[in-house]
Amino acid sequence: MTITIHGSPKSTCTGRVLLTLYEKEVQDFELVEIDLSKGEHKSPEFLKHQPFGQIPYVVKGELELYESRAIARSVAEWFPNQGTSLYGTTAHEKALVEQWLEVEAQNYNPPISTIVFHLVFAPMFGLTADEAVVAAQTAKLESVLDIYEKRLSETKYLAGDFFSLADLSHITYSFYLIKIAQKGAIYDSRPHVKAWIDSLFARPSTQKWLKLAGFAQ
Amino acid sequence: MTITIHGSPKSTCTGRVLLTLYEKEVQDFELVEIDLSKGEHKSPEFLKHQPFGQIPYVVKGELELYESRAIARSVAEWFPNQGTSLYGTTAHEKALVEQWLEVEAQNYNPPISTIVFHLVFAPMFGLTADEAVVAAQTAKLESVLDIYEKRLSETKYLAGDFFSLADLSHITYSFYLIKIAQKGAIYDSRPHVKAWIDSLFARPSTQKWLKLAGFAQ
Ligand SMILES: N[C@@H](CCC(=O)N[C@@H](CS)C(=O)NCC(=O)O)C(=O)O
Ligand SMILES: N[C@@H](CCC(=O)N[C@@H](CS)C(=O)NCC(=O)O)C(=O)O
Repeated sequence: MTITIHGSPKSTCTGRVLLTLYEKEVQDFELVEIDLSKGEHKSPEFLKHQPFGQIPYVVKGELELYESRAIARSVAEWFPNQGTSLYGTTAHEKALVEQWLEVEAQNYNPPISTIVFHLVFAPMFGLTADEAVVAAQTAKLESVLDIYEKRLSETKYLAGDFFSLADLSHITYSFYLIKIAQKGAIYDSRPHVKAWIDSLFARPSTQKWLKLAGFAQ
Repeated sequence: MTITIHGSPKSTCTGRVLLTLYEKEVQDFELVEIDLSKGEHKSPEFLKHQPFGQIPYVVKGELELYESRAIARSVAEWFPNQGTSLYGTTAHEKALVEQWLEVEAQNYNPPISTIVFHLVFAPMFGLTADEAVVAAQTAKLESVLDIYEKRLSETKYLAGDFFSLADLSHITYSFYLIKIAQKGAIYDSRPHVKAWIDSLFARPSTQKWLKLAGFAQ
């Protein structure tokens, strides 16, 4: 059954869903582009499908689903027998994937999304970045990365020695911060974090997303 | 295998885990109390288990796990054949539970936890509530409740006509806002939200938590 994604390939949250589809080797999907610059995500028609006025949402048969991490989790469960096993292989591993997915959503995403907003998106909309906010959120992100550095000195990926949905969920915002905003120094100074993020960016799925989004050829 | 919860029964995040255990009719658990007022959650010993210095975390055999929503999800999956089916009964329903769990974490929790902090916890620590922050976050919460009101006029619970982990996840902070901070008016003015929250508070599992936390007899 075709999965239709309503979103924008450049957007970090749409990217999270696309990466999951690529990792699970799902071929049968299509993208309906929502143009944020035209405010299409605030139209009455769009709000019928995603009442918070944010991309992405997906349609699969009778099911309409939004929230990128909920979509990613669902895609990982719908295709258990193909592609990367994004939840590990045991109940113990799955629990740790859930833990690190929550750490991403609760501790990593708030500072990094704020920094990327100020450094990348605000200028696009003619707004000035608030340097004090950027500094405060960078300090927060650094304290999170200190915890990651310790964890990644013990295991290759966040949930263990296997790539999972938890790692995947970090890719799109990290790419924006490191490669678009050119703020990679706080990663470079933490060797295990640096090796981890390099390995995430090198994945074929990440490369596919970067091509689709027009960030790579 | 005994599940040991390191947390505080009064805390909203520990409450989320306790509610899940009650709904799943798990008997074999114990609580090790962490005294936040003594800063026990910032001790070097505690940080070995939860590096962000927050409660709760649980121990189950070899597994140590933190992040309350990750623990709740895991408990729901570990005991598939007992208590309430917190993920519904089909893959379609499970996806919608995941969606509304994310809505709670991403859209409901940020404003309500900020309001409760200012109105309930700040005074405990001798801090003054910032009324401007409370007003701004209340406006945010109201716009979320408008979306809930529409949804709950179509289905009895958030993910459909069945109680799920998504509803459960709202209980503890809502209790603090409505019953402790006495700010129930924004719920009362939305009839479907009001009926929903009343039904959540009336659940035997909620009553058990309230007793354990010393909020009810
Ligand atoms: N929690 C939501 C957040 C979605 C989100 O923030 N989407 C952004 C693009 S990455 C968006 O639509 N921004 C426009 C807006 O919020 O007005 C998810 O993960 O799906
Ligand atoms: N995302 C975490 C948040 C945990 C959390 O905020 N715990 C609070 C109690 S509800 C706490 O430990 N607060 C003390 C602190 O942050 O210093 C979870 O859901 O477990």
